[in-house]
Amino acid sequence: MKKNEIPDIIVSRLPVYLRALRRMQSQNQQTTSSQELGEQVGISAAQIRKDLSQFGEFGKQGTGYNIAFLVSKLREILQVERVWDVVLVGMGDMGHALARYQGFSDRGFRVAMVFDNDPTKVGEQVGNFVIRDTNEMRKAIQESGIKVAMVCVPAAVAQTVTTQLVEAGVKAILNYAPISLNVPNGVRVQYLDPSIGLQRMTYYLE
Amino acid sequence: MKKNEIPDIIVSRLPVYLRALRRMQSQNQQTTSSQELGEQVGISAAQIRKDLSQFGEFGKQGTGYNIAFLVSKLREILQVERVWDVVLVGMGDMGHALARYQGFSDRGFRVAMVFDNDPTKVGEQVGNFVIRDTNEMRKAIQESGIKVAMVCVPAAVAQTVTTQLVEAGVKAILNYAPISLNVPNGVRVQYLDPSIGLQRMTYYLE
Repeated sequence: MKKNEIPDIIVSRLPVYLRALRRMQSQNQQTTSSQELGEQVGISAAQIRKDLSQFGEFGKQGTGYNIAFLVSKLREILQVERVWDVVLVGMGDMGHALARYQGFSDRGFRVAMVFDNDPTKVGEQVGNFVIRDTNEMRKAIQESGIKVAMVCVPAAVAQTVTTQLVEAGVKAILNYAPISLNVPNGVRVQYLDPSIGLQRMTYYLE
Repeated sequence: MKKNEIPDIIVSRLPVYLRALRRMQSQNQQTTSSQELGEQVGISAAQIRKDLSQFGEFGKQGTGYNIAFLVSKLREILQVERVWDVVLVGMGDMGHALARYQGFSDRGFRVAMVFDNDPTKVGEQVGNFVIRDTNEMRKAIQESGIKVAMVCVPAAVAQTVTTQLVEAGVKAILNYAPISLNVPNGVRVQYLDPSIGLQRMTYYLE
């Protein structure tokens, strides 16, 4: 089956399954069931079995899933058995937090370069990085072949930065700026705007 | 129509429409169309009209939407015409960034209290806040009636903190910890794990 024939909603659940399985693994658990996994992630066992069946036959009736095997398969499907270099743009509070974030290393990502357009920040050391000028960004991305970026700039400049990233070859953008980004076909954006997350929930509050 | 009869996928798009409309408003635009709004948020005009029609009749054939009116209606539907106090737990890098985040104030939220369990952090000033001990959290939430929380603690303690928040009366949790949380019916969680966002995209990379 071709990549784009799998509904994106299914793809979106695979990282959640992987995260839960890795956690079981870290607790030395060897096997699991769709029931147990479902309880941990809040998704029905039937849905999990249906999602995974899109990609192959990973479990056995009665004995369940071998966790190490399923982890390995999911990492392969999501292409995170390798490590992706990530460029980080915008070194405000959120950019600083992401530059120091410890949660990328064993999940397929590594912040490789950090940029800002503020001359007072350029040259500053943040964790293992020296903040570089966004003027150098396009060339640096092209030379390194980086495909993944995180955008933490103010809303007013987020589209301009995004266009520069796309022109430099970036294909996947995690956007923290509170604005919808326009990107060409073949480029993907995921949004992490905390106010959007909160507003989705206040709808239901009494 | 009752709240829970509207599909959550529709509710999830309303904050995105609101954000784009607020942006148009900030640029002194008075009216818009489902076409224009759709281009800005990357959703079809037909989908937008269908989503909005679940809640009433907000536009006129030919003249489109009055932005101020639609903003006001969406804020009312999402219940963000008021300001929700938010409790923030876990004052690592991400917690610090959120405590200082300027993007909540005009979108219906206000960080009201910040907590950490680290004695070396308790008492520290962060922005306008003094970090308080999580031992005091339950009582403080109950007394204030806060319903919304952001969890920025390590994965290993996120479920414990969540259970405490829920027992204290919290009904909506924005979770930055890289773990799925178990909550009772009537409590909602939204997840902002950057690695999950990235892994959803690497699936498609070539």
